[in-house]
Amino acid sequence: MGQTLTEKILEDHLVEGDLETGEEIGIEIDQVLTQDTTGTMVWLQFEAMGLDEVQTEIAAQYCDHQTYQFDFKNTDDHRFLRSAAGTYGAHFSRPGNGICHNVHRENFAAPGKTLLGSDSHTPTPGGLGELAIGAGGIDVTVAMGGAPYYIEMPEVVNVRLEGELPDWATAKDVILELLRRLTVKGGVGKILEYTGPGVETLTAPERMTITNMGTELGATSSIFPTDEQTEDYLERVGRGGEYVPLQPDDDAEYDDEIVVDLSDLEPLIAQPSMPDKVVPVSEVAGTDVDQVIVGSCTNGAYEDVLPAAKMLEGREVNKKTEMIVAPGSKQASELLARQGWVAEMMAAGVNFSEATCGACIGIGHVPASNSVSLRTFNRNFEGRSGIEDDNVYLCSPEVAAAAALKGEIIDPRDLSDELGDLEAPGFELAEEYNASKADLITPDEAVDDELVKGPNIGEVPLREGIDEDIEGEVLLKMDDNITTDHIIPATQDILMYRSNIDKLSEFTLSRVDETFADRAAEADGGVLLAGENYGQGSSREHAAMCPMHLGVEAVLAQSFARIHRANLFNFGIVPLVIDEDAYDGIDQGDEVEIVEDVETGVSEGRSEFTVTVNGDEEYTATLDASQRERDILAAGGKLSWTKAQAQSGSDAPADD
Amino acid sequence: MGQTLTEKILEDHLVEGDLETGEEIGIEIDQVLTQDTTGTMVWLQFEAMGLDEVQTEIAAQYCDHQTYQFDFKNTDDHRFLRSAAGTYGAHFSRPGNGICHNVHRENFAAPGKTLLGSDSHTPTPGGLGELAIGAGGIDVTVAMGGAPYYIEMPEVVNVRLEGELPDWATAKDVILELLRRLTVKGGVGKILEYTGPGVETLTAPERMTITNMGTELGATSSIFPTDEQTEDYLERVGRGGEYVPLQPDDDAEYDDEIVVDLSDLEPLIAQPSMPDKVVPVSEVAGTDVDQVIVGSCTNGAYEDVLPAAKMLEGREVNKKTEMIVAPGSKQASELLARQGWVAEMMAAGVNFSEATCGACIGIGHVPASNSVSLRTFNRNFEGRSGIEDDNVYLCSPEVAAAAALKGEIIDPRDLSDELGDLEAPGFELAEEYNASKADLITPDEAVDDELVKGPNIGEVPLREGIDEDIEGEVLLKMDDNITTDHIIPATQDILMYRSNIDKLSEFTLSRVDETFADRAAEADGGVLLAGENYGQGSSREHAAMCPMHLGVEAVLAQSFARIHRANLFNFGIVPLVIDEDAYDGIDQGDEVEIVEDVETGVSEGRSEFTVTVNGDEEYTATLDASQRERDILAAGGKLSWTKAQAQSGSDAPADD
Repeated sequence: MGQTLTEKILEDHLVEGDLETGEEIGIEIDQVLTQDTTGTMVWLQFEAMGLDEVQTEIAAQYCDHQTYQFDFKNTDDHRFLRSAAGTYGAHFSRPGNGICHNVHRENFAAPGKTLLGSDSHTPTPGGLGELAIGAGGIDVTVAMGGAPYYIEMPEVVNVRLEGELPDWATAKDVILELLRRLTVKGGVGKILEYTGPGVETLTAPERMTITNMGTELGATSSIFPTDEQTEDYLERVGRGGEYVPLQPDDDAEYDDEIVVDLSDLEPLIAQPSMPDKVVPVSEVAGTDVDQVIVGSCTNGAYEDVLPAAKMLEGREVNKKTEMIVAPGSKQASELLARQGWVAEMMAAGVNFSEATCGACIGIGHVPASNSVSLRTFNRNFEGRSGIEDDNVYLCSPEVAAAAALKGEIIDPRDLSDELGDLEAPGFELAEEYNASKADLITPDEAVDDELVKGPNIGEVPLREGIDEDIEGEVLLKMDDNITTDHIIPATQDILMYRSNIDKLSEFTLSRVDETFADRAAEADGGVLLAGENYGQGSSREHAAMCPMHLGVEAVLAQSFARIHRANLFNFGIVPLVIDEDAYDGIDQGDEVEIVEDVETGVSEGRSEFTVTVNGDEEYTATLDASQRERDILAAGGKLSWTKAQAQSGSDAPADD
Repeated sequence: MGQTLTEKILEDHLVEGDLETGEEIGIEIDQVLTQDTTGTMVWLQFEAMGLDEVQTEIAAQYCDHQTYQFDFKNTDDHRFLRSAAGTYGAHFSRPGNGICHNVHRENFAAPGKTLLGSDSHTPTPGGLGELAIGAGGIDVTVAMGGAPYYIEMPEVVNVRLEGELPDWATAKDVILELLRRLTVKGGVGKILEYTGPGVETLTAPERMTITNMGTELGATSSIFPTDEQTEDYLERVGRGGEYVPLQPDDDAEYDDEIVVDLSDLEPLIAQPSMPDKVVPVSEVAGTDVDQVIVGSCTNGAYEDVLPAAKMLEGREVNKKTEMIVAPGSKQASELLARQGWVAEMMAAGVNFSEATCGACIGIGHVPASNSVSLRTFNRNFEGRSGIEDDNVYLCSPEVAAAAALKGEIIDPRDLSDELGDLEAPGFELAEEYNASKADLITPDEAVDDELVKGPNIGEVPLREGIDEDIEGEVLLKMDDNITTDHIIPATQDILMYRSNIDKLSEFTLSRVDETFADRAAEADGGVLLAGENYGQGSSREHAAMCPMHLGVEAVLAQSFARIHRANLFNFGIVPLVIDEDAYDGIDQGDEVEIVEDVETGVSEGRSEFTVTVNGDEEYTATLDASQRERDILAAGGKLSWTKAQAQSGSDAPADD
């Protein structure tokens, strides 16, 4: 039986286990990336583990989320990250140099390599045939120390592309169409592998828009084969030598297959407030638009901004609409500036921003109350923009530019008919991506050789093992699809405490219930209750670290999002799966007991635990975990476990 | 006896009083400007006064301080301001279009006109021969309603310029030299009128750097005569027809004279943390620099950024230094982009920002703790950058660029020697300032015809008259030179409440004493005690409005800064001048009584009031005010007074 491309790369990196769906495997990691909201903890953990030097081929620290440096804590974090990268041998990308995924794909991403990143959109370089996975920060720390990364072997799904995109339909519409069909849970436990004759019609950047936003399907990763398009892109970024041809075997067997005919696609849009609420743009045409933003790791590359710039050239943004363009990298900005497009966009009325994640996580350009914002981003979770009850739509740069010109949502094909002289801009790569690398400091150029910590940079929190009995109150009952943005919001006023867990914890789940953190701290123990897909969205491990710090011992949920589930193990919180009956039967405020020697049960492989509610009702909760995960959980988390391993004389920081 | 230029313009606009130093005069206002931190109150007051339409030749609402829109309250404010401009007939400059002073000088400033602006750097167009004065918001409101603006006739000081600037010395060094000589109090009660043969050697933009930063001397305004340089600039911005030749009479008499020989100047720098702590750059050479920012209304114009860009071309910012360029207007950005300079700066490692006041008031790019920041701004008051105990230096773009290249402070002449190929960049105007005006919405293009208020936009506070007895505690004793940044900080986390006085008041004087607002609210009345130059800096009237809201009835100070003094009258707080003995003799916590029919005394022209401290000690405090000021104060402030006038049948909103 032939192999999928995913299996080929995994096999090439396999250090433990078998490539059987659902089995735990350990793989070697070639590259790691981290950014400024997750990176401080990564390096504090690296320091706490006593590691000396980065062991992966490439480690890169980017500063992209808090580039506006709206508080000295942000600037201190950036200085700390520069010092950590310098001290331990990582590349450092200065604030303003761009979003991690964009800068990484321009400089480091390579076919056949593995990449682990402490950011949920890490799969972006899958469009270049790299197997790239998002993880919690401590997993990245451990991988950076040279240890394998452990994961359940995902299902591999064949996404077969046929046909060719018509005018005005884009790569963004491909992934929006998949979200429409599969929903935000459709990719959980899966790697989406793109195949079929449609693949060669898509350039590498277009593929990376798709692999990037595959994260919104809940997918572990997304990957394309490599071909002339891949080679062409690598040559244009000056790394043609890194090209490797990679294809699945002709007789590869997939766990499932989805067919998308590109020629059937039209401009699509995700309505508020979930990326899978996708409809044709024409269905919501006529909606007044207050704000339009082009940018993000999904659609902020040179090639993404260019079509919008072409549409704006010689025209003006509607007076009732504000338009912001925040390129994904300074390389994109510099090329667009050099070719005159920045001037054209400014002339049209665009507020041209520094390269930043910014508005995508609610940092800057927060929408006005009761307003509509159209964005080329990947997420529109309610409140993520920085204001509760927001109305954020997700779309392609073409649809965004059309709305900016019209002042309302309009299918760009209709706008083209209206204006008469508006051509479909097409999709075009730069002849050569030859922008400066002044802001990417290599390990050789490092200016620091010791850590520089500002006063807000705290300690890494530790849990010393889990208890035999979990007894406590159900502190909060939550619905389906609670995101890590709900657990720890990424807005500036909160995330500036990301290096200070004691302070940050005060905001835990505040978007669901403002009283939660106080109640949890007072209760000193207790459990959380949630529906399906708990912890979707961003990879930030603070969403596990802060509940741990507040004393939360277990989460009972109908299902967990992958990265957050791993983070719960990593921070010593027991993630128990319950069924719908149990979810319906348990209420906030109920007293819960799990008293069957939990620590022993976790360690020894027990999969079922009895949850007694208010002393009488009983439900069964399931712990489905590998022995390695159980050991980590029982130790109170990965840091405690790694330290214990080191003390017991095994090869720290080896993670086996 | 001949007239000064100041007298000529004042006479041309005089509606009340005589042009005698110290006498109150009323002048007609041709143009008003307001920005987004002071503008919401201006328009709420305009609405509260029942006014229908702007009466000045030009009224312009700019959005420049909060352009990053870190919170929906900022974005709501911008939407409100757009709606107010549209409703009442003002020009509206969208966020990202640039700093009020820069956009105003490009589009509206004209020789011989009067401009009143609710921003302390309003004097900028003095460089074009406009008499431009900063004032509290309510003064701008009233002027916008067509009433005269009242002010004590200032002294007019002749600043005689001789010689010509040598290479590497700039207009910034002229004003830094004046600050070095005169200190931040040296211009109080004065208008600085520039004359002499050196004037013609300075282009209009250079003059505007000087008039802009004249504010830091405490001056009421600064003004240049007009000549070929003025005409040349106006022609380049497409408004040559607005040129009017304006000169003082040859036999004009001035109250004082200062002579500056431009040819003696060298690169200067203001050390932390006051704009008058000026030394030659060479004196602090070798200081490591973490951050360099080029921008602001002082040095953010096209012509200011260009020399820095030339110095950076083909070079790289030092790896240990972050450099941000935030142009003063989108016109500057667009021209720089069109000519390739934006790309060159990006290539050198500059983080190129949207056009914004931003970092100058601590919004964005806050320095790291224990770090050094070099900025081309006009103010470096301690903590204004957004972090207490900051180390902010003020200098020219040339000195800033040199530091960015070297990673430490260096006299650019020395850097030029070191590098061998670094030429003095000179100072150059654009051939034509022909950038787009897409972001400047004229009254004819307005898209709103009613006010749009978000949930954070509150009520205008009112005080119903002052009491006959002032009795209360000395709530806070402060040193000399307390700035309005101390009274109400402009950082994002605080200033986002600028339209919500109830909430904003919680932060009053928090930078001096965190307990103040709580104590004041609890005391429900009381007085403030301060040394010299109380209320210097920004014009924001919130610095009077919030103390009023907290119940403060009087401020006892050795002297007051001009705009803040006016704001105290405007918000019904009695500004009493005390001598050094009184200042030394009164302590925080003392009980103070002023019980001689204060309201009557204020109304009836009494100038001396007895302050009884703790029931025994007595000091004399002075109220030196015009009858108009007394009436306003007795009414509880300008809004109450204007309303009362309207009710009593006089021609509201006339202000006489």
